[in-house]
Amino acid sequence: MSTRRELANCIRALSMDAVQRANSGHPGMPLGMADIAQVLWCDFLKHNPGNPQWLDRDRFVLSNGHGSMLLYSLLHLTGYPLSMEDIRNFRQLGSHTAGHPEHEPALGIETTTGPLGQGLANAVGLALAERMLAAQFNRPGLPIVDHYTYVFCGDGCLMEGISHEACSLAGTLRLGKLIAFYDDNGISIDGKVEGWFTDDTPKRFEAYGWHVERIDGHDPEAVAAAIRAARAESTRPSMICCRTIIGWGAPHKQGTHEVHGEALGADEVAATRQAIGWPYEPFVIPAELRSSWDHRSRGAAAESAWRDLLARYRGAHPRLAAELERRMAGELPADWKETVSQALAAGLAQKAPQATRQSSQATLNVISPSIPEIFGGSADLTGSNNTRFKAASELDSKEATGNYIHYGVREFGMTALMNGIALHGGILPYGGTFLVFCDYARNAVRLAALMNTRVVLVYTHDSVGLGEDGPTHQPIEHLASLRALPNLCLWRPCDAFETAVAWTAAVERAGPTALVLTRQALPQQARTALQQADARRGGYVLIDCQGTPECLVIATGSEVGVAAQAVSALNSGGRRVRLVSMPSTEVFDAQDEAYRESVLPRAVRRRLAVEAGATLSWWRYVGLDGRVIGIDRFGASGKGAEVLAHFGFTAEHVAREARELLQL
Amino acid sequence: MSTRRELANCIRALSMDAVQRANSGHPGMPLGMADIAQVLWCDFLKHNPGNPQWLDRDRFVLSNGHGSMLLYSLLHLTGYPLSMEDIRNFRQLGSHTAGHPEHEPALGIETTTGPLGQGLANAVGLALAERMLAAQFNRPGLPIVDHYTYVFCGDGCLMEGISHEACSLAGTLRLGKLIAFYDDNGISIDGKVEGWFTDDTPKRFEAYGWHVERIDGHDPEAVAAAIRAARAESTRPSMICCRTIIGWGAPHKQGTHEVHGEALGADEVAATRQAIGWPYEPFVIPAELRSSWDHRSRGAAAESAWRDLLARYRGAHPRLAAELERRMAGELPADWKETVSQALAAGLAQKAPQATRQSSQATLNVISPSIPEIFGGSADLTGSNNTRFKAASELDSKEATGNYIHYGVREFGMTALMNGIALHGGILPYGGTFLVFCDYARNAVRLAALMNTRVVLVYTHDSVGLGEDGPTHQPIEHLASLRALPNLCLWRPCDAFETAVAWTAAVERAGPTALVLTRQALPQQARTALQQADARRGGYVLIDCQGTPECLVIATGSEVGVAAQAVSALNSGGRRVRLVSMPSTEVFDAQDEAYRESVLPRAVRRRLAVEAGATLSWWRYVGLDGRVIGIDRFGASGKGAEVLAHFGFTAEHVAREARELLQL
Repeated sequence: MSTRRELANCIRALSMDAVQRANSGHPGMPLGMADIAQVLWCDFLKHNPGNPQWLDRDRFVLSNGHGSMLLYSLLHLTGYPLSMEDIRNFRQLGSHTAGHPEHEPALGIETTTGPLGQGLANAVGLALAERMLAAQFNRPGLPIVDHYTYVFCGDGCLMEGISHEACSLAGTLRLGKLIAFYDDNGISIDGKVEGWFTDDTPKRFEAYGWHVERIDGHDPEAVAAAIRAARAESTRPSMICCRTIIGWGAPHKQGTHEVHGEALGADEVAATRQAIGWPYEPFVIPAELRSSWDHRSRGAAAESAWRDLLARYRGAHPRLAAELERRMAGELPADWKETVSQALAAGLAQKAPQATRQSSQATLNVISPSIPEIFGGSADLTGSNNTRFKAASELDSKEATGNYIHYGVREFGMTALMNGIALHGGILPYGGTFLVFCDYARNAVRLAALMNTRVVLVYTHDSVGLGEDGPTHQPIEHLASLRALPNLCLWRPCDAFETAVAWTAAVERAGPTALVLTRQALPQQARTALQQADARRGGYVLIDCQGTPECLVIATGSEVGVAAQAVSALNSGGRRVRLVSMPSTEVFDAQDEAYRESVLPRAVRRRLAVEAGATLSWWRYVGLDGRVIGIDRFGASGKGAEVLAHFGFTAEHVAREARELLQL
Repeated sequence: MSTRRELANCIRALSMDAVQRANSGHPGMPLGMADIAQVLWCDFLKHNPGNPQWLDRDRFVLSNGHGSMLLYSLLHLTGYPLSMEDIRNFRQLGSHTAGHPEHEPALGIETTTGPLGQGLANAVGLALAERMLAAQFNRPGLPIVDHYTYVFCGDGCLMEGISHEACSLAGTLRLGKLIAFYDDNGISIDGKVEGWFTDDTPKRFEAYGWHVERIDGHDPEAVAAAIRAARAESTRPSMICCRTIIGWGAPHKQGTHEVHGEALGADEVAATRQAIGWPYEPFVIPAELRSSWDHRSRGAAAESAWRDLLARYRGAHPRLAAELERRMAGELPADWKETVSQALAAGLAQKAPQATRQSSQATLNVISPSIPEIFGGSADLTGSNNTRFKAASELDSKEATGNYIHYGVREFGMTALMNGIALHGGILPYGGTFLVFCDYARNAVRLAALMNTRVVLVYTHDSVGLGEDGPTHQPIEHLASLRALPNLCLWRPCDAFETAVAWTAAVERAGPTALVLTRQALPQQARTALQQADARRGGYVLIDCQGTPECLVIATGSEVGVAAQAVSALNSGGRRVRLVSMPSTEVFDAQDEAYRESVLPRAVRRRLAVEAGATLSWWRYVGLDGRVIGIDRFGASGKGAEVLAHFGFTAEHVAREARELLQL
């Protein structure tokens, strides 16, 4: 029978050979964590390589994603559809085996990792999702949702601040089914970490309320015992601190930073083969070892047992079963179209001026009863972000049926948790903070866009119009900066109706959406039925003139009202000016050319964009002959209306700029 | 004689009255921390209100910056040039008393705070700067640099991940003169923190190697004892955990989140007056209390004693004294111009292709011996960022004379520390990471720009050209996103010469600069003397044609070489195409109109920009009739050259696009 060490050496051999062949990659971590991975994947992990998307599988996250060959080796060896050819093509263009793991559920890659610390936070989100779904769907004797979340992480993950945010919250929430393994190898890229990282990590995690184990990561029995202890602990997350040797088995390089991030070199590969007793050619796994690793039949049996449970569950709770399946499939409720109509009607019914953050809450109040998968939260700005809908109930360490969470002052942790929740499936998370503090979460927003997770980012206090809190709180560059991010859909609505449009589009979108909302009240715009329909197209004519326009004014959000006054005044004065409301440049850009031309005719070159943020977003629409009324410097503390006027966001100033353009 | 409580109540009265008058602000924290502040500022803080920029003053940072009225009250009461009129104008447009403290050294505001956690990280940087300067300049019996750094922080600061990064590093570095006060009031904006923040914070800080005290923050004797203990502890930073009541003294609101972020209301203000025994009108401080607070004569005496020491120091070490003063004034060395010439000459001498990250290191090797204030580092990517110059020596917990630091995997902490170091003065910090991970540090980069700190951000691996590490590591939106940030100067040089230009411009700039550098080798471009001079203008003609150009091609960094091949081929084929190298759009935009017109003539509308990043940056320069070869989607893992070709960054593709433009 294959020994554990021999099985672990399969990972080592594949990893060092693939890195060597690519002449690029990180062999140190897979060699160091192979023994831990072998125990976890062979003895504990509940998964079915034949169906990587089995609902009740355990989730496995490789937060130290540079060690991607560890994951690819595990997937290949246990029988996922990741071939030896894929392994041989490690890090090559077009392969499934990218330098860092990229979310690919059909292959068993649960999340994209590499940006350190975020996998750990995703794992907290995955574990939280499991806990919520279990609370919502399990019934006595029918634990239809019941799985663990395992995560590997390294020194880098634990140095990153996000590890603090996510793990502190996991401790508070008492996520007992989250089990983390810390690859405590004492080495990071610059060398021995003792010069820059001397935390007592076990003590740190005890301070977060975690259950902590300290073991030798090369002792399989110790690993197994620690996993058993962690699984026995049901009310605290577990951190298993594993002393390991990075690059274990590479006789001249193990335990040094040389083995971290580059190929071992042919000589050291040969020496490692010798040292670990691996006489086989590159990319060859002997049949006996392959057979020991193969998890397909055991996985199928495990899923089959669960399917029996599901059948019993369906028999007892047919509606719940159908609902769970709908939600896990990411499908909208059957009556969603009606819900949208109600939300839009409510937006239209709003007549008095209203801050769009309040319009957002009003939309949430309409839609939330119809989409039970919605799960709100805020990074300690609930009252300011208006993120709590009327029927919301709090989720906390005791009550997991809640649908609203207080994330604390943890924007990055919140966003990465939301990614994890969305990756799990079954829940549609949204979370709020001030627009300026999307900065803190920036790379998690990027990963949402890269993975296409269905999350809604509620960003309020969206310009200098927020007033007194001053420049530290007033976003300037953020709209441009978020628009530059591929695959993020940003909406900056101008009133209650556009807010309802934006929210419903966000719920319908398979990927991430940012809703950018005002602190201050905005007037409601009048619209024809056609304009109402066109609002969903991201940009549309809100006020038109007689005949061909001589000037186009484009505005978003709080500037639409100001621009509307200016345009009306100009048109009353005999000019021909068109106002385009452009709540989402991304959505508008995705329309067909004929529509775009109908809104912004190419021939009209006198163009003026108005937005209380960096001008960078707008040159694309106004060109070399146009102008932008924007803000390319930092804001100022003062009353919101005064600050907006100070920066030129008045109808008079917009009209003056338009008149100047017309006279050029 | 005034009691401590009466003195603290001066802060409470000013704070609640100013917030009430503005009807905006955060009274809870000043009321809660007033007792602590009174003890620290009256009994311990070494400062001179008559000279807020005294070199050897203790530094005080209010990391929980929403409590700005605490700081304004202290500055006003102790005699800084912050008048009662300023206090009355709290949060009004144009006042010195913004909603959150804004760096204003002439008033004693050491740093801009409000974005939570960053003040704490700035304080770590300030304390580190003190330690470095002391090690470099102090001589036996002449401790010319010898001061403490004190920082107040709240629950929000300690929930933020950056608190982990900064405080973990402070523990490792053993910054014994850093003393933090944690306002442990159990309340954040959403309510009682026990639902989302249950860390054992003292234990957490012990795990970082800090000295920890636990006290009642309303017991002045306990506060004084804790400060004495913290000052007695010379090898570990100190965290004084102070149990406090938020809004202390407001009888109906104290201890609740209602008192956190809005005015108390007239009734509660009146009730508070009653409760704390404060019979005076708003904005009136009785003479006796005012006199007890006034620190001007004591401050002047303290500085005077130090000036005597400085005189003795100057006598013994005249050159050192002059050097310290030069560096604290932020002046460049007398031979700086020569250094620049050498750096540029070295850039020109480089003939073989070279990655600009290597060119950067080569420039550092030339300039570092001439600017001893330079202080390098990297967030655990020293070898990849090429940030370590030849003569660098390591700074660590034992050796403070080093000029290179390993920040660990802590991009946000690194950047905020660099801000603190720069704010202290005397040191010019630069720090490296991959461009994509500027995301992690995003809001600290913003605060650098807002405060105009002199820091150099070294961002390598600047495009998909980095290759195998794949989409998680390949920046796309980052160039646009950084350019959208006001007051950040970004350079993306195309070869060794432009890299030398960029580095010397960065050193000369009073504010922050981002140097964006390649992983891969780039060819060296030929330049005339005029072109060499114009390179400093941010954008200049690198290849011109005979007569008026019919097409302008604009490129940066690694795309200049590709574009140069394309343009040369087009011109050889009889076209008239001009190539503009634009390493810094910010610097180019700041040139006079005549120069800009000479480079990019308005009349030429066939324009093509080429940059391996989001197109958003370039519409401003190419207009509605131009094109941009950029990347508006995520990258791919593969060999760098293959990935670049995949995305269209080849001379052939650039030439084809230009030809199409010419045929339109």
